[in-house]
Amino acid sequence: MRLSSNIICGLVFLSLIGCARSVDEPKVILIIGDGMDDQQISIARNYLAGSSGRLVMDAMQYRGAIRAQSVSEANPEEHLYVTGSAPAAAAIATGIITSGVRISTFPQTDKDAVTIMELANDAGIGTGIVTTASVTDATPASFMAHVSHRACQGPENMVRNNERNPRGSYECIGDYKRNGGKGSIAEQIAAGEMDIVLGGGRRYFDQVAEGESENQVLQLARDNGFEVITSRSELQAIPHDTSILGLFVPDLMPPMLRGNGATIADAGLPEPYACEDNPEFADVPRVLEMTKAAVSHLESRGSFMLVIENEATDEHAHLRQPCGHIGGVAQIEETLKFVLQYAESHPELLVIVTADHGHAAQIISAQRANSSPGHVARLITADGSIMGVNYATTRSNMRAAHSGVQVPILASGPGVEQWPVFMQQTEIFHIARKHLGLNDPL
Amino acid sequence: MRLSSNIICGLVFLSLIGCARSVDEPKVILIIGDGMDDQQISIARNYLAGSSGRLVMDAMQYRGAIRAQSVSEANPEEHLYVTGSAPAAAAIATGIITSGVRISTFPQTDKDAVTIMELANDAGIGTGIVTTASVTDATPASFMAHVSHRACQGPENMVRNNERNPRGSYECIGDYKRNGGKGSIAEQIAAGEMDIVLGGGRRYFDQVAEGESENQVLQLARDNGFEVITSRSELQAIPHDTSILGLFVPDLMPPMLRGNGATIADAGLPEPYACEDNPEFADVPRVLEMTKAAVSHLESRGSFMLVIENEATDEHAHLRQPCGHIGGVAQIEETLKFVLQYAESHPELLVIVTADHGHAAQIISAQRANSSPGHVARLITADGSIMGVNYATTRSNMRAAHSGVQVPILASGPGVEQWPVFMQQTEIFHIARKHLGLNDPL
Repeated sequence: MRLSSNIICGLVFLSLIGCARSVDEPKVILIIGDGMDDQQISIARNYLAGSSGRLVMDAMQYRGAIRAQSVSEANPEEHLYVTGSAPAAAAIATGIITSGVRISTFPQTDKDAVTIMELANDAGIGTGIVTTASVTDATPASFMAHVSHRACQGPENMVRNNERNPRGSYECIGDYKRNGGKGSIAEQIAAGEMDIVLGGGRRYFDQVAEGESENQVLQLARDNGFEVITSRSELQAIPHDTSILGLFVPDLMPPMLRGNGATIADAGLPEPYACEDNPEFADVPRVLEMTKAAVSHLESRGSFMLVIENEATDEHAHLRQPCGHIGGVAQIEETLKFVLQYAESHPELLVIVTADHGHAAQIISAQRANSSPGHVARLITADGSIMGVNYATTRSNMRAAHSGVQVPILASGPGVEQWPVFMQQTEIFHIARKHLGLNDPL
Repeated sequence: MRLSSNIICGLVFLSLIGCARSVDEPKVILIIGDGMDDQQISIARNYLAGSSGRLVMDAMQYRGAIRAQSVSEANPEEHLYVTGSAPAAAAIATGIITSGVRISTFPQTDKDAVTIMELANDAGIGTGIVTTASVTDATPASFMAHVSHRACQGPENMVRNNERNPRGSYECIGDYKRNGGKGSIAEQIAAGEMDIVLGGGRRYFDQVAEGESENQVLQLARDNGFEVITSRSELQAIPHDTSILGLFVPDLMPPMLRGNGATIADAGLPEPYACEDNPEFADVPRVLEMTKAAVSHLESRGSFMLVIENEATDEHAHLRQPCGHIGGVAQIEETLKFVLQYAESHPELLVIVTADHGHAAQIISAQRANSSPGHVARLITADGSIMGVNYATTRSNMRAAHSGVQVPILASGPGVEQWPVFMQQTEIFHIARKHLGLNDPL
């Protein structure tokens, strides 16, 4: 009895795998919380939902851990256990492991790595980016461009000579058009084949393009067929028959929530507080709005690859402003709610939520937060209880630094029950690629 | 076609659930890495296996996140977002949420909470504990005893008056036998019904029991039917027809690996080093050996509940000694390898690996580790690359403090494919209880 029952169960299991694999018009929505590690998720859950509350992402089907990797530019055999957004995004977008400041180019050789967006474009699959950062910032850029330094965001930013800090000097020599390159990140986006790109960073597109006397990068984008929009209201009624470039702010979008920054702990226990709405946020589109517009634009294509990034989870952890990164998670949450509802009627959609790297924030005892050697804040959570948040990766008065912890990956959709519980970051590229039926360029 | 295929898939899926649920002689092995959060796992993986290596736990079937919870003793409505080992273990062992120093008793009322070991004993299911801590320490104690303060480990430790630090004072008044209680933790273990208990803490059993003129707690254990062993060699040939109490060291077992502790970061970048074998470790049984002995002892019972704890992951994170906590993960790894092999021939075994709470250690940039305001160490990993480890939750020269991050839970065995990806810590109690077919006492 036992044996035959096991055989039946085995057959049933094999049938299930077969069921999960067959999808028409495969779609991927990949949501990246920049620096949104398990600490940030815990902080946001406690703050937004209290000690017995749950997040939307907690209802996803799969959870695993991802190791982000990068290597030294001087010696690509040397592993670096703490990663920045640029190599992490290259791992996800191209499946390669690269060095700290490169945008989808190989270390030392500067060779371009093929991105999943390029593969998708070649295969006639729709492509979209939504971000609260500049669309030229490291994470979105790694899906749309190839340059040797992440700072080469616009044609005027291709070089920086910094005598006081030679490490801050760079020149994207091989990327100049006059040297046979494709130009700055903004110029590559303008000349590229993305269906829809929404975010900040207008100032990089307002620059005169390399080799032009007057034409700004934005004009190049228009000449290439992009409809350019710059306001939240325009987002409500974008045409679906042309590519869209939405640039809503000059640089990074303002955070949804604001509140005090963390303060030096040995000054005493900081006063607990609750976050407040950031009035500046009212003028910019929410991630949710941008996502709805992007999905609506892309779904006529059948298959699509849409990447959504929230940058507040990184930027405000650097700035030691807990409300900033909590608001970032809150934006991901409301967006994910919509995406998972959309998934209910689109079983061919693979939804992935992940972070690119770990960050500084740690929950510590609210009662003893003043014992920290770093900067601390105390927040009044949804329970009315107090939560301590510690930032102690640097002594700098300006910015905290990343951590090298493994980061979460959550997913729902076809096949996720087969995923291993631990993966290298490059495997995300292959998962998305295989779901979309794209060949391996590596 | 689409509809009927979906219906078939649905039926197949329902059958699968049915298949997963039917097990005879259900067994649970629950492995707790004390303080073994995602940072510690990442640190150990990088150190032991390098930047492309994987751990044994990475091959488990399920990964989720657990929120540890505790409440204020003064106001049980007030949630504390950073948890110690005692309330975390009470959550796992009894399904209740309690305050910081209690061993499986309710906050304020001091009422005992029924443990899964008590439920198992009542149901005729085998019960075992393996730990590198004192068997009377908070984590194992919470499965075997009920006292109002975790420090009441032996009859001589039932009270401490600390004039210099009144918060360090306590008295387990309701737990004295003369007051109708069950005595210290050691006395409760000696009088209890566990099948096998292996670990440290002999000094608490060498004390004269309350109400006795000469009899030590150890004698009470023998009178209650325990065979007492105290050396590694005795562990190789324990009788299977009697209960076993193995106490191999007076207190905590020494760590497997040793190396420099972290140093104050602003003194400069510390010299990188590799861990070395701790010679003191050679005299004590490995977690693997204790686990093999416990499984061998318990399997004649058919069903059993075995809890395995490694304490080095907590103690050496407090002490800011990365080799100590890496060695703790290494002991869990070699034990888990055996347990997963055992599971291959025992499909009725549910294997769970989790941590009770988060901890201080963070991977930070090896090149900029001297920017930390805390204590840092630099380790040469299996790759030959350098990893920075930061401890910056306290300024104390003595000990770092816990973090309140959600902790990992990994599992393999019947039904794990149905588990949600996020759970409260108390749900572990119910999962184990249900797998063993035990009723809910709450």
